[in-house]
Amino acid sequence: MFGMETIQYNLPQSRIPQAWYNILPDLPAPLAPVLHPATHQPIGPDDLASLFPMSLILQEVSAEREIEIPDPVRQIYAQWRPSPLIRARRLEKALDTPARIYYKYEGVSPAGSHKLNTAVAQAYYNQQDGTRRLSTETGAGQWGSALSMACAFFGMECKVYMVRVSYNQKPYRRALMEAFGAAVTPSPSEETAAGRAILAEHPDSNGSLGIAISEAVEVAATDPHTKYALGSVLNHVLLHQTVIGQEAIEQMSLAGDEPDVIIGCTGGGSNFAGLVLPYLGRKIKGRWHARVVAVEPAACPSLTKGRFTYDFGDTGHLTPLVKMHTLGSTFIPPGIHAGGLRYHGMAPLISHVIDLGLAEAVTVQQLDAFSAGIQFARAEGIIPAPEANHAVAEAIAEALRAKAEGKPRTILFNLSGHGHFDMQSYIDYQAGKLQNFEYPEEEIAMALAGLPAVG
Amino acid sequence: MFGMETIQYNLPQSRIPQAWYNILPDLPAPLAPVLHPATHQPIGPDDLASLFPMSLILQEVSAEREIEIPDPVRQIYAQWRPSPLIRARRLEKALDTPARIYYKYEGVSPAGSHKLNTAVAQAYYNQQDGTRRLSTETGAGQWGSALSMACAFFGMECKVYMVRVSYNQKPYRRALMEAFGAAVTPSPSEETAAGRAILAEHPDSNGSLGIAISEAVEVAATDPHTKYALGSVLNHVLLHQTVIGQEAIEQMSLAGDEPDVIIGCTGGGSNFAGLVLPYLGRKIKGRWHARVVAVEPAACPSLTKGRFTYDFGDTGHLTPLVKMHTLGSTFIPPGIHAGGLRYHGMAPLISHVIDLGLAEAVTVQQLDAFSAGIQFARAEGIIPAPEANHAVAEAIAEALRAKAEGKPRTILFNLSGHGHFDMQSYIDYQAGKLQNFEYPEEEIAMALAGLPAVG
Repeated sequence: MFGMETIQYNLPQSRIPQAWYNILPDLPAPLAPVLHPATHQPIGPDDLASLFPMSLILQEVSAEREIEIPDPVRQIYAQWRPSPLIRARRLEKALDTPARIYYKYEGVSPAGSHKLNTAVAQAYYNQQDGTRRLSTETGAGQWGSALSMACAFFGMECKVYMVRVSYNQKPYRRALMEAFGAAVTPSPSEETAAGRAILAEHPDSNGSLGIAISEAVEVAATDPHTKYALGSVLNHVLLHQTVIGQEAIEQMSLAGDEPDVIIGCTGGGSNFAGLVLPYLGRKIKGRWHARVVAVEPAACPSLTKGRFTYDFGDTGHLTPLVKMHTLGSTFIPPGIHAGGLRYHGMAPLISHVIDLGLAEAVTVQQLDAFSAGIQFARAEGIIPAPEANHAVAEAIAEALRAKAEGKPRTILFNLSGHGHFDMQSYIDYQAGKLQNFEYPEEEIAMALAGLPAVG
Repeated sequence: MFGMETIQYNLPQSRIPQAWYNILPDLPAPLAPVLHPATHQPIGPDDLASLFPMSLILQEVSAEREIEIPDPVRQIYAQWRPSPLIRARRLEKALDTPARIYYKYEGVSPAGSHKLNTAVAQAYYNQQDGTRRLSTETGAGQWGSALSMACAFFGMECKVYMVRVSYNQKPYRRALMEAFGAAVTPSPSEETAAGRAILAEHPDSNGSLGIAISEAVEVAATDPHTKYALGSVLNHVLLHQTVIGQEAIEQMSLAGDEPDVIIGCTGGGSNFAGLVLPYLGRKIKGRWHARVVAVEPAACPSLTKGRFTYDFGDTGHLTPLVKMHTLGSTFIPPGIHAGGLRYHGMAPLISHVIDLGLAEAVTVQQLDAFSAGIQFARAEGIIPAPEANHAVAEAIAEALRAKAEGKPRTILFNLSGHGHFDMQSYIDYQAGKLQNFEYPEEEIAMALAGLPAVG
């Protein structure tokens, strides 16, 4: 053992958090209410009852700081949680940086990403409520795989609307969902009114998360045995991810270190929220002071270029109105390979903490993200998901700033998933077939012009 | 925690074994000597010096029971080792069996399989010896990815001859190796005399591990800066895998349980050896009594249908002669999707312990292997590599026998890798495009007729 450095900071099964951390009661200002799309009045729990079981609806608005994790959920978490916190010592050496770089690695979940944290919880509460089938959307496929797996565990059917560009780019991701028994349909599809409306206007539509959400919501709203499950954006989804940050706090303490900057990529906001919300809870209480950085793709920059206002969560306008950073619900982002980040909006909770100045946001271009992913893979062995490459790129940039300034610092980022099902994007990148995207100014201006008039 | 059952039996980084376990001095009868292909006389270390660094050659014949693992190797192991031992509680429930099923999960390595255990060790010793480039073969790609990654870690080039059928079936596996900076060529190729000889006779050859070994060996033998690395078969490769079984022994003891039967799939024999050799060391000393089962594909049944005799390790007859179970070095196995099991021979050490009666062998058909893999995935969430499906199938069969007999028992198997890069095989299986293979009697009889006359 002499001379061995610690690489993984591991916790035993008994240290899986007992409760999810709910930041709502700790926020210095409350979240804006969710509004009914027709009346523009705040909605109540019953308005959502056709889509979600009441247990999840109540979590969405809970004022309890700690929400106990049911034993059957923790029992499944125990297969891969607590997930490892890894010190990227070989990457540090390769960068020749004085910074210490840690990553929380959620790719060890059998689904390959953080998404399983909430998929298992949502499947559990639905099963308890007697749901027979869950419908959902998926972009890159991380969420769809996770929910398919969770439905297999709890004996429910699963229907997945997969964004068409990802459906075509990632046949193996679809095969994985089908291996778990899910039914997968490319979106937009002819199966729903929302899908048909898009196809009538754009027969060659690449699809988007906003469109796929409309289709999945429509199916749940019109079938009494089907409920809807969302992989990000909503408070209860972000809540379920807080196991990540709670574990990280304990693991950083094991490492005898404290992050100076925490980094996560943001699409809908869930992996970022999972890592940072427990830290932000401490920041609000003055117990921790450091930077928190959300990284979004330059092609879909809701936090840095969007408007903080009320908008629909989907393109077909079936969802309630939520206050969030949005590029406009009719904006269809360019077909970047980080499909999980192709969402016009942002979790209201993340939008709110950015608005409060508790966190900041930056953008990364597609080519820089892949270049960082390759550099990371050669040093650390793990090939990140294209989404996670955005966090990797910013972590590397921060480490290089530390080097330029000659000032050490501690960087913590969320490596939210592996890229084993995204290899076509690496093939295209290495073949020089990928491109950066200019900020799609006109399309976004048009989409923003269509925002609902609220208040 | 009340009501929580343990799923993972985890060990801290400090419990990574300090030494590899070498079974050679404990064997009740010695291994047959390795013979020079021309003289048929036992070879000495110098005969192998063009292919391997002396440190590895000495490990091949070492009489030391414990061989210390160098700190830089353990340091890299620490990223994923000790690997988890998982109780397959959901699978047990799905099978309604009284058996307790445990699996040692090697898919958590960043390369996705057990292969990284020896890749890191071989890359380390080669770097110490001044090697600039390693050449190797790969079947399904598990070994090629592992060695590519290890070479990236140690700053060496890597040249991989990938069996053509796998090269075509698994473009993402190739992309992974290329992401780590390796050069990958489909085998047989025009780059080597061995490859050209095969192509002259079989222009459409699917390739085989035996052919790819010839190509990689030829490159190393003819380039002073290149050495050769093998992913299985040789004693030192099996030695490096013994971290698996040593950890498993400690983890089973944590679980308060003891295996009644241990199962692993066998192609060249390395993942099987890794799990079972430490147990067999105890069996030889009378400290443990139980069944050890090697599972091979029905299409390439070296242990159950081959002859235990001297043969070449490769198709081009560039290697020394080793005594092993072989189907004949010119036998080219059918193109089953478990590419890692398509080898005409078997590790001499595994052949020997089977011959001594310390372990037994069974075969599994391709369709049964995939059916078991899907069943396992739906219960446990992990989609196994096609090779590992053979072990899964036998573990499930054993659990069902326990149910039929109404007798509990403890089953331990090696889940040697995940199937994330093998999804095309699952697509083909689910589409009904895969088939079983009859025992290729005539081809094997012909290949066996060509065995070298030794002794």
